[in-house]
Amino acid sequence: MAKQDRAIRTRRTILQAAAKVFEERGYQAATIAEILSTAGVTKGALYFHFGSKEHLAQGVLNEQDQQLVVPDRERKLQQLADVVLLHAYRLQSDPMVRAGVRLSMDQHAEGLDRSGPFVRWSGVCRELLDKAQAQDELLPHIVPSVTADVVVSTFAGVQYMSQVVSDYRDLRPRTSELLRHLFPGIGVPSVVALLELSESRGKKVYEEILRLQDRQPAAAVS
Amino acid sequence: MAKQDRAIRTRRTILQAAAKVFEERGYQAATIAEILSTAGVTKGALYFHFGSKEHLAQGVLNEQDQQLVVPDRERKLQQLADVVLLHAYRLQSDPMVRAGVRLSMDQHAEGLDRSGPFVRWSGVCRELLDKAQAQDELLPHIVPSVTADVVVSTFAGVQYMSQVVSDYRDLRPRTSELLRHLFPGIGVPSVVALLELSESRGKKVYEEILRLQDRQPAAAVS
Repeated sequence: MAKQDRAIRTRRTILQAAAKVFEERGYQAATIAEILSTAGVTKGALYFHFGSKEHLAQGVLNEQDQQLVVPDRERKLQQLADVVLLHAYRLQSDPMVRAGVRLSMDQHAEGLDRSGPFVRWSGVCRELLDKAQAQDELLPHIVPSVTADVVVSTFAGVQYMSQVVSDYRDLRPRTSELLRHLFPGIGVPSVVALLELSESRGKKVYEEILRLQDRQPAAAVS
Repeated sequence: MAKQDRAIRTRRTILQAAAKVFEERGYQAATIAEILSTAGVTKGALYFHFGSKEHLAQGVLNEQDQQLVVPDRERKLQQLADVVLLHAYRLQSDPMVRAGVRLSMDQHAEGLDRSGPFVRWSGVCRELLDKAQAQDELLPHIVPSVTADVVVSTFAGVQYMSQVVSDYRDLRPRTSELLRHLFPGIGVPSVVALLELSESRGKKVYEEILRLQDRQPAAAVS
């Protein structure tokens, strides 16, 4: 194994350990010592990759943004729905994504900037809504920047309620219902009527992306 | 001052102190000793009203449910909007309501049942949506119990994002935008077109309720 591959794997091991400890203890109570012993790496290795507890948390937070990229769709509202439904699927199935989301919802994580994921997600939605508007998919009064924040905040709330009442077990049907309620207030009826918003959609998109990545040369996969 | 009045005031003083300490420290780190010294009451007085830290937290959580009751509206969707907009206004202006909301969002409050406020809010919305349905205000495919959860979870998300990015300063415009996006997917167009969803509505409803209470005999105010 090349030196660089080893470094990437060590970094990943540390992040996974950090995710686990942050999820169990919360940001404030988590210690670097516990992350070290969970990861089973040396102090030197950890500090080579992450200078502080805050950097570790930012690393976990950033993982939820390393999104598998949804392929271009003809209808941009479908692409937006796919981004949301894919995230719901990954949140249910990937502990690292879950840890990042919970960290961004941790109110007692003093000194940790939790607005980052909201702002970045909002940017992703805004871009798709701008494109949707250019293609006349949106109702005339819609302002993409405002609607992007509505999509991001409401999806965060659905995640939160699902976590509290069912530990994310009902996240997919709840996310599907969110989009069914929200899109008639965003898109023109002729587009909204054709959108695929079912609760099994996220898994389908996930598998589609994996298939597409397999067919591409390794260098193109980032 | 009658004995009972004194007890009510002491209880209120303790709850306000608990709200302050829970908001500053989070549930886990908060101690009864700090709540005692903040409230300036005796240990005996505190334990007379609240048997444990958990009871104190439940007391604060329950305060957000002691809602000022929105008067009956002809259109039940307007009444639902008023409940939501009033809560946004109170959340911005009443520290006790704010502490309850933050406590219900505290992921590290082990042993504290945080689903209560979600379930109770959902019940309030469900009842109004049932009435709206009986009056033909809802789109034909709407299921009140499902839509009630969508309203509650999305509003929680809007509160959360507003807290993170602006410490609630932009909560009222965000709440107003939420309803403008959500209601076209819930109500029939002829009703939705007439709804008053502006960001100043919550304050108006609050003042209306205070005026109505002033005109009633004291016994009727609970």
